[in-house]
Amino acid sequence: MAFVYKSDPVRGAVWARLFAERAPQVAFHVWPETGDPAAVRFLAAWIPPPDLARLFPNLEVLFSAGAGIDQFDLSALPPDLPIVRMIEPGLVRGMVEYVCWAVLGLHRDMPAYLRDQRAEAWTQLRVLPAAGRRVGVLGLGVLGCAVLEQLRGFGFDCAGWSRSRHAVAGVACFAGKGELPAFLARTDILVCLLPLTADTRGMLDARLFAGLPQGAGLVQVGRGPQLVEADLRAALDAGQIGHAILDVCDPEPLPPGHWLWQHPKVWLTPHIASMTQPESAVEVVLANLRRFEAGEPMVGLVDRGRGY
Amino acid sequence: MAFVYKSDPVRGAVWARLFAERAPQVAFHVWPETGDPAAVRFLAAWIPPPDLARLFPNLEVLFSAGAGIDQFDLSALPPDLPIVRMIEPGLVRGMVEYVCWAVLGLHRDMPAYLRDQRAEAWTQLRVLPAAGRRVGVLGLGVLGCAVLEQLRGFGFDCAGWSRSRHAVAGVACFAGKGELPAFLARTDILVCLLPLTADTRGMLDARLFAGLPQGAGLVQVGRGPQLVEADLRAALDAGQIGHAILDVCDPEPLPPGHWLWQHPKVWLTPHIASMTQPESAVEVVLANLRRFEAGEPMVGLVDRGRGY
Repeated sequence: MAFVYKSDPVRGAVWARLFAERAPQVAFHVWPETGDPAAVRFLAAWIPPPDLARLFPNLEVLFSAGAGIDQFDLSALPPDLPIVRMIEPGLVRGMVEYVCWAVLGLHRDMPAYLRDQRAEAWTQLRVLPAAGRRVGVLGLGVLGCAVLEQLRGFGFDCAGWSRSRHAVAGVACFAGKGELPAFLARTDILVCLLPLTADTRGMLDARLFAGLPQGAGLVQVGRGPQLVEADLRAALDAGQIGHAILDVCDPEPLPPGHWLWQHPKVWLTPHIASMTQPESAVEVVLANLRRFEAGEPMVGLVDRGRGY
Repeated sequence: MAFVYKSDPVRGAVWARLFAERAPQVAFHVWPETGDPAAVRFLAAWIPPPDLARLFPNLEVLFSAGAGIDQFDLSALPPDLPIVRMIEPGLVRGMVEYVCWAVLGLHRDMPAYLRDQRAEAWTQLRVLPAAGRRVGVLGLGVLGCAVLEQLRGFGFDCAGWSRSRHAVAGVACFAGKGELPAFLARTDILVCLLPLTADTRGMLDARLFAGLPQGAGLVQVGRGPQLVEADLRAALDAGQIGHAILDVCDPEPLPPGHWLWQHPKVWLTPHIASMTQPESAVEVVLANLRRFEAGEPMVGLVDRGRGY
């Protein structure tokens, strides 16, 4: 059985070492090396090669190298090819760290304090107890639930919203477009952890911002095209959004001179909230390979109709 | 029984309302109002009035309005007057929030990312799993232990150091000056939560910094005079300390033009990590008054010889 890895070559070398240790029976190749293309049954990729079906005629599973699959052009992939998202504990832990840092920072007014520092101003602001701070997470998948569990540990008043009905212990759960206004109205700090789909593209727009309490904070760790950047700018300048912490934008990298680089109410990081960790990712992929060979359902199998 | 509160008058008004609700039998006064000074048995103060013994001849307990008592001149206080530190859950939660924010930010290289943002640079840095990040807390009192418990929840490799031997679940504990070098050598992010005493004054100096791994992070949430600021500057400029997050300095407020305001490797906040919350503080003080009247030991009673 042959497996091809097509993403960052530095991490690919780590995957190769781990496969050699843990699954020596697999012929593992780091793209552009592929061995005999006809022998390739599995591909892990951030961006699959064009003309995938012709290149690897016997491909059986496509693994995304990241948490999302929005970077895939589904129409260009063989319609029956199973696609598997990356759900691995290293990626989850990274996201939990980033979101807790961002939410705690907004909760404790750190953007204002760090601006004050450079202005040489010593001004103590009122502290709100965490129990009085309403945090809302858009997206109740593996990442959203892990983030909410950690935030609850700080005592925040937590809610979550998702397309379909979910139940999460200690979290007020809202579902569907009909309940979105009620969710937004009770959210002082909004965290977006949604997958990019036709429904979520452009979802973070002026109308959504207007539904939040004035001065709300935004943490965007979903995907760049979900955010209408011009609407965010207007909301920041009007004070409707107090501060935004963005880990994603559109396009990436952000072009030189873009307003997001310098806006005083924006903190931007270069899509680093969460990165697949080779050690734990390889373990998860090998477990899915075992399931696949045994005819069992793989963890993270994508529903193409739903888009994630 | 009369009780005088002498600290921030805005918070004093909240204390007065809470005492009226929960302990209407107490004659509660907000300084400079005191009622009959001879009737005052209890004082809660950030800075006690000069000539305390003459002013309140029947004073029985002095409560600090803050977590520390280093703002008290012990030599000017009646030698047998019991002094009680403020240990209340609101103050603990605030400190846990601040330190987690600071440690997560240093762990995930946020100072570098936010500098990069303003330089319009998109550079992803290597992510270290939390289990590989060694966090060390100086001071294993109520605050230190609460902070360590929350940090452990993120998976950090945690250690603590204190003057006397402590045991904390899941935390490598070091004690005394003899074990300080071993503690420092395994600490990538150092958090100072020590009380200010003769021993800890000037403790964060060049020698201590030299004992840390190169590029270590510093979170100073103790007291300003513990830090030798000139030594920190040299350590930052030499790269021995990678970044410092300071909530305290000396004096406070920091004077205009001081180098800490503008140093790119320093984040400074105006002593806001943790503030006594009237709601929970009054509850704790009332519980201590009940203990005192019943002849039981009060929680937070200061050992003057030890200094905290």
